[in-house]
Formats: sequence, C-alpha cells, structure tokens
Amino acid sequence: MQNIYQFQTADLIVSGKDSVDKMMDYVPRIKKNVSSVLVLTQPGIKDLGLLDGIYKQLDHETISVTTITDVLPEPTEDNIEEMYRDIKDKAYDIIIGVGGGSVLDAAKVLSVLKTNDQTVRDMLGTNLIEQPGIPTILVPTTAGTGSEVTPNAIVTFPDEELKIGMVSPYLLPDLVILDPMLTLGLPKPITASTGMDAFTHSLESFISNKSNYLSDTFALDSIRLINDSIVEAYKNGNNVDAREKMIVGSMYGGMALTSAGTAAVHALAYPLGGKFKIAHGVANAMLLPHVMEFNLDAVTERLSIVAKAIRISDDNEKEQEASEKLIEKIKEWTKILDIPQDLNEYGVTEDDIENLAVAASKITRLLDNNPKELSIEDMKNIYRRLLG
Amino acid sequence: MQNIYQFQTADLIVSGKDSVDKMMDYVPRIKKNVSSVLVLTQPGIKDLGLLDGIYKQLDHETISVTTITDVLPEPTEDNIEEMYRDIKDKAYDIIIGVGGGSVLDAAKVLSVLKTNDQTVRDMLGTNLIEQPGIPTILVPTTAGTGSEVTPNAIVTFPDEELKIGMVSPYLLPDLVILDPMLTLGLPKPITASTGMDAFTHSLESFISNKSNYLSDTFALDSIRLINDSIVEAYKNGNNVDAREKMIVGSMYGGMALTSAGTAAVHALAYPLGGKFKIAHGVANAMLLPHVMEFNLDAVTERLSIVAKAIRISDDNEKEQEASEKLIEKIKEWTKILDIPQDLNEYGVTEDDIENLAVAASKITRLLDNNPKELSIEDMKNIYRRLLG
Ligand SMILES: NC(=O)c1ccc[n+]([C@@H]2O[C@H](COP(=O)([O-])OP(=O)(O)OC[C@H]3O[C@@H](n4cnc5c(N)ncnc54)[C@H](O)[C@@H]3O)[C@@H](O)[C@H]2O)c1
Ligand SMILES: NC(=O)c1ccc[n+]([C@@H]2O[C@H](COP(=O)([O-])OP(=O)(O)OC[C@H]3O[C@@H](n4cnc5c(N)ncnc54)[C@H](O)[C@@H]3O)[C@@H](O)[C@H]2O)c1
Ligand SMILES: [Fe+2]
Ligand SMILES: [Fe+2]
Repeated sequence: MQNIYQFQTADLIVSGKDSVDKMMDYVPRIKKNVSSVLVLTQPGIKDLGLLDGIYKQLDHETISVTTITDVLPEPTEDNIEEMYRDIKDKAYDIIIGVGGGSVLDAAKVLSVLKTNDQTVRDMLGTNLIEQPGIPTILVPTTAGTGSEVTPNAIVTFPDEELKIGMVSPYLLPDLVILDPMLTLGLPKPITASTGMDAFTHSLESFISNKSNYLSDTFALDSIRLINDSIVEAYKNGNNVDAREKMIVGSMYGGMALTSAGTAAVHALAYPLGGKFKIAHGVANAMLLPHVMEFNLDAVTERLSIVAKAIRISDDNEKEQEASEKLIEKIKEWTKILDIPQDLNEYGVTEDDIENLAVAASKITRLLDNNPKELSIEDMKNIYRRLLG
Repeated sequence: MQNIYQFQTADLIVSGKDSVDKMMDYVPRIKKNVSSVLVLTQPGIKDLGLLDGIYKQLDHETISVTTITDVLPEPTEDNIEEMYRDIKDKAYDIIIGVGGGSVLDAAKVLSVLKTNDQTVRDMLGTNLIEQPGIPTILVPTTAGTGSEVTPNAIVTFPDEELKIGMVSPYLLPDLVILDPMLTLGLPKPITASTGMDAFTHSLESFISNKSNYLSDTFALDSIRLINDSIVEAYKNGNNVDAREKMIVGSMYGGMALTSAGTAAVHALAYPLGGKFKIAHGVANAMLLPHVMEFNLDAVTERLSIVAKAIRISDDNEKEQEASEKLIEKIKEWTKILDIPQDLNEYGVTEDDIENLAVAASKITRLLDNNPKELSIEDMKNIYRRLLG
C-alpha cells in the first residue's frame, strides 16, 4: 500500500434516474449567471434524443445555446484543434459534454484551451495546463471510462499511431450528472466493451502499486456493482437498476484510477487502439485475463480479496484457488459479452508483435504501477496469447 | 433508496502517515502565492507539538504566520464572533485549522465570515452563506466528526441550550490532510467518544431515508474500517495502522452523512450536548443501541447487511438475528470503551425528559431522515432507558 495518497474528484456529483432533467437546479451552484452555453456531443447521441431533456431546460430567452456534434470517436489532436478554432472567438459561460469518454475528454480539453494560451500538444503530460478552464458539466452516456471524474483526457495521434494523455486537476468538471436513463439505448457491443473498461480500471487500481484505502474502497465497490449488473445490462439493456449500477460502478472506477492509476493492461491496450483501431474497452477486455495470469504470483492475495467480495469464493478457500477463479470469471464474461478473443480479427499478425511491445514499453507512467515488472519479451508473450 | 442523490467533498484530500509533513507540496494547488497564514487551534493541541511539522514548513521569510488558540470545545457563537473581531482587519491567504471538530468547524466559519457581510447567526440554516470563503486547509486531530469533508459547521448557543448547524458548500475545505500520526496521543476517552461519533455517522447514513449508492459505499467501508480498529486504537493508541483506519473511517462517515444525513440518534443527542454538556460522541454512543432497537422492524434488512459486512453474521443467518447481533455488538463496544451508560451521571433526571424530548422533536432536518417516525412519547421512552 502507498504511504501517502491523494484523492480529488468533480466538484459536485448528481446521480440517479432522471437526474438529467434536474440539471438546471444545480447549475447556480457552479455558475451564477448563465447566458451562453456550448453543448458538445456526437450526431448519434443527438439523434437518439439524449439531449432533449437538457435543451428543454435551456429553452429560455436569456440563454443562447450552441451545439457542436463534431467529436470523433477517440478524438484526434486535429479534431479537437478544429473544434477549438470554431469556438475560439465566442464566449461561453459553461460547456456541457454529453456522450461517452470521447465527448467528455473533448469537452474537458476545449474548456482549458479556451482559457490558456497553449495548444493541445503543450498540455500533454502531467500538470502542464496553466490555468483552470471555463466551467464544465459532464454527462456520461456510456458506463465505462469514468472520464467524468478523472483529471485525465486522452488524445489520439493517428500519424504516430499513438494515444497520449494529459493529466491536470483543471480537467476535473464542476458538475457531473450520472443518469442511467441515458445509457438504456447503448448498443450491446458498446455496453460490453465500455463495461469491461470500467471493470479493468477498478481491478487494475486494486492491484496497483499505488493502491490505498481510498482507491480500494472505490475499486472494490465498483467491482461489486459491475459484477452484479454487467451481464444483465448486456442482455437486457432496458433494466434501469442494472444500468444504474453500471454507471455508478464506472464512475467509481474513475475515482479509483485517479488515486491509484491503471497498470499493464492499459499500457498494452493503448498501442492496439492507436494502430489497429481496436476499441479501448475491447483491447482491455482481451488483455485483462492474460495480464492477470502473468501478474498472478504477485497479486494472489489481492485477487482473492476480489473473489471474496463478489462471492465466488469464501474464507475457507486458498488464495491461489480464489484468484484463479476470478480470472476464470473474467474469461467467462468476455465470452458471454461476445468480446473477440483473437487479434487476427483486427489484422494483427506475428509481425506486429515487436512494434506493439516496444510501443507499450514506453508507457512507463502506467507500467510503473504494475505489481510485476514486464520485459519486452513478457509483453510479446502476452500479445501472442491473443493471436488465434 | 433515494431517487436522485448528490455528493460533494473537499477539493483535494491527502492522506497517510506523515502526510502533514508534505502539506506545503500541495498548497500551490489551492493557492498560488501564500504570504500570510492564519493557524487556528487549541492550546492542548499546540502543546502536544502537533503543529511543529506545519510550522517548520511555513518557516520562510516570505510567509507571516498568525496562530490563534482560542477555540473553545464545541465553540459558541460568542467564541467565534470574538475570534473574528481579532482577525477582521487582517488579510490572510489561507486558514489552516488543526484540531478536532471544534477547531475545524471554527476554521470553516471564520473563513466565510471573512468574505461575507454576514454574522454567524445570519448563516445558520441551509445554503444561506452568500460567498465562498478564503481557502482553508483542515487537519483533523480526532477521528470522529468527519467535519473535514462535510459542508456543515455546528455552533453552540449556551443561553438557548442549543446547538445549531449551518450547511453550505462554501464550508467545504480546499485541502484536507489526514495524518494518523496526529491522533496517536488522543486520550482514551476522546478516542472512544469520537470513534463512536464516526460509527454513528455511518450507521445512521446507512439506514437514512436518503441513503443511496454513494453514501452506502462510504458508510459500509467506514463501518468495516472502524470495526477493524476501534478497540485496538482505544487499547493501544500508538498503533498507527489502527489510527489510520480510524481516521479514514471517520472521514468516510463525513462523506456518507454529507450525502445521506444522520437521523434520530443525532437529533436526540444534540439536546444532551446543549444543556448537560455531554460530549457529542458520548451522547451518540449512549443513544445508538436504543434508537436502533426502536428502529429495528424498519431496518432489519439494512442492519443485517452491516452485520454481514463486519462478519459477525453470514448469509445463512436470518435478518432478524443478524441485526440483533449488530445491536449487541454496539453495546459490547460501549462497555469495552468505558462509555457511561447512565444519564444520571450527567445530572439528568426524570424531570428533564420532557424538555429534552421537545427540544429533540424540533430537529426535523435530521428526524426526517429516520426510517421510522418518533412521537414525543417515543423519544421520552428512549431517554428513559438511559436513566439508571
Ligand atoms: N479521460 C479518461 O479518464 C479516460 C479513461 C479511459 C478512456 N478514455 C478515452 O475515452 C474514449 C472512449 O470512450 P467510450 O469508451 O465511452 O466510447 P466513445 O465515447 O468513443 O463512444 C463509443 C460509441 O458509442 C456511441 N455512444 C455513446 N453513448 C451512447 C448511447 N447512450 N447510446 C448509443 N450510442 C452511444 C458514441 O457515439 C460512439 O460512437 C477513448 O478516447 C479513451 O481513450 C478516457
Ligand atoms: N461539522 C460537522 O460535520 C460536525 C459533525 C459532527 C460534530 N461536529 C462538531 O464537532 C465538535 C466535536 O468535535 P470532536 O469530537 O472532534 O471534539 P473536539 O474538537 O471538541 O475535541 C475534544 C478534545 O480533544 C482535544 N484534542 C483534539 N485532538 C487531540 C489530540 N490529537 N490529542 C490530544 N487532545 C486532542 C481537544 O483539544 C478537545 O479538548 C462539536 O462541536 C460537534 O458539534 C461537527
Ligand atoms: Fe480505460
Ligand atoms: Fe456526529
């Protein structure tokens, strides 16, 4: 366990069924006078009507509303800079981001671009953003990244086949609205992949070298909530209780990783996203059981605690067996959730393994959190297990 | 469970052994330039050397430090207004409060008195404070109130024999330092009473009508941590692990009550503090098992969940029996912790019961959270059980 640890989150979190319809009740707590609002989203989300409740509340003579739907999935530097050029000369009192991690990250970055004389590139890395941004409201519509409560934003650099993060307390929002109703229509594959992303955040935080009392609390309860609901949310997307457990569980995953950090699963996943466009959650889900098998001797006790927390094991069982049961459980989920098991399906071949491993080995910010060191050879072996 | 629920906490929480010695590393995150600091504490805390680590870090030519040690236990309106007169005309960049709930509450109130044209009395109630205060750092030295993460401050009005709260997001601090080392020297009776206060926050939040996913997470983990450590912290005050579990557990209690609220135990406890000067934690600990017995039929399931979480029961046991075991466990603790069982010891007699019950019945803000309604007669019966 970490000796000194810290925790920081969104200023105000409002959660529950239909909470989005009460958004304006909470806005005065973050910004007294609101006359100009920027809404950031994607066409698919707008078309599903997920913004209707918000527009209704903003429908006042005194409030002007601009909507931008140009956020690309896993947004690139160009995508963000281009949206920024569109809004550069306009003044907004708040930015409201409504969408998955892609939209939330874009909203966070636009907020700080507006107040800083810095480019996206200047901000990459840790604590490099100079000033707080304009107030943001983040409304997740996937239950996955936890981005609504992390001080992180991830930007894709297609030329370099890379995804790079920026980390700064100024990326935390002023208000989070966590409404399970917005996730009822999530397509099955996205429910599966984003849900496994959330689970990975919590499991990696729980075994992280930086794990601590605070991150453990969020990680374990996240795992309990996701275990209770992921299969049901996948099979029966209209189950509001299951969707609420998923969206709270994914937020807890964000809180856990803010304090403890993710580790080797995420480090190995990023290169698969950068070059092969494998969705972030799918890459994590594929890698998760294999990285845990690699980690096993270093994390037997921790994994056994997780197995007990989700009641697939009890005090009478040996730690080794309990932790193996947990890994089996994860494999079982990926099957039930129809997550691909073979990197070949995405065009990855043996020839790519070396480059993938080299790219992953550079993500030391995450690898340093892993309870066991990975050599390039170890990483190659893990990727190979996913080759048909 | 509450339909729509919210959560708000301190901006930044830094926790762990010796974290207080790193305080200045985090200060730039809440205030860029610091040249004038007000330290608020009590003589006993200063004499124990608990401020030495902080003074050492503030020992710079460019920083002027003022220390006020005038905070009374369970501070009165006069006490706070008097300290305010002393600092009214001086400018401070930050207020650092180092002490138990009494000091932390006073620091919170002074911070907002400095920036608002309001008196203490103007601020009593919910959301009546007009402007944010000056930045505050709260450093608890008891593991009890959780005041470091609540938007509340409690003021005593001796003439009216009352304690009244103010609730406002502006009372939340900018930085919390949670260092178990500061609690090693807590005298046994204070370890016991403040620890039971924390436990009461969590148990009351867990059964509150406003309980929700977020408050449940903090409440249950708080109860687990306190169950693991309260007896050990009492018997062996130098056990750093036990002290760390207590201080994290008490902070979680504050987080739980911020979201779900306390209930009848706290409502019945306040009049005992106002007139008979019974320490807040002692009053709570005395009342807790009796109020839970009164509540029992409405909270059997909830109490059984708690009993399972602390492993005094399991899935095979009936909820009724599990919840009774929990109440027995609480009674056992109060005995081990040498908490008085008899209100006579504090001069309370049968003649006082009516007034106590009437005073408690006015605290509807808390009584509304209780899962079972209490008549005046019910309250009188509960107080009577504590009369020899
Ligand atoms: N900031 C962080 O802390 C953090 C953490 C992990 C991942 N990320 C980043 O987040 C991004 C991934 O986010 P994501 O997994 O949420 O996916 P996403 O935001 O890219 O969304 C995936 C797809 O689902 C659609 N969608 C979203 N909500 C929907 C709904 N309710 N109904 C129907 N369709 C919906 C989107 O339009 C999109 O096409 C990546 O860029 C990743 O790197 C950020
Ligand atoms: N704001 C909130 O959310 C909230 C919640 C509950 C209670 N309260 C209020 O908090 C106050 C009670 O706070 P408390 O229970 O922490 O007690 P306290 O602050 O009054 O402290 C009790 C005694 O212990 C001493 N002390 C504190 N730390 C010590 C240490 N490390 N070593 C030795 N002595 C130490 C103090 O000097 C004092 O004499 C009451 O006024 C109560 O109403 C506030
Ligand atoms: Fe992720
Ligand atoms: Fe209390």
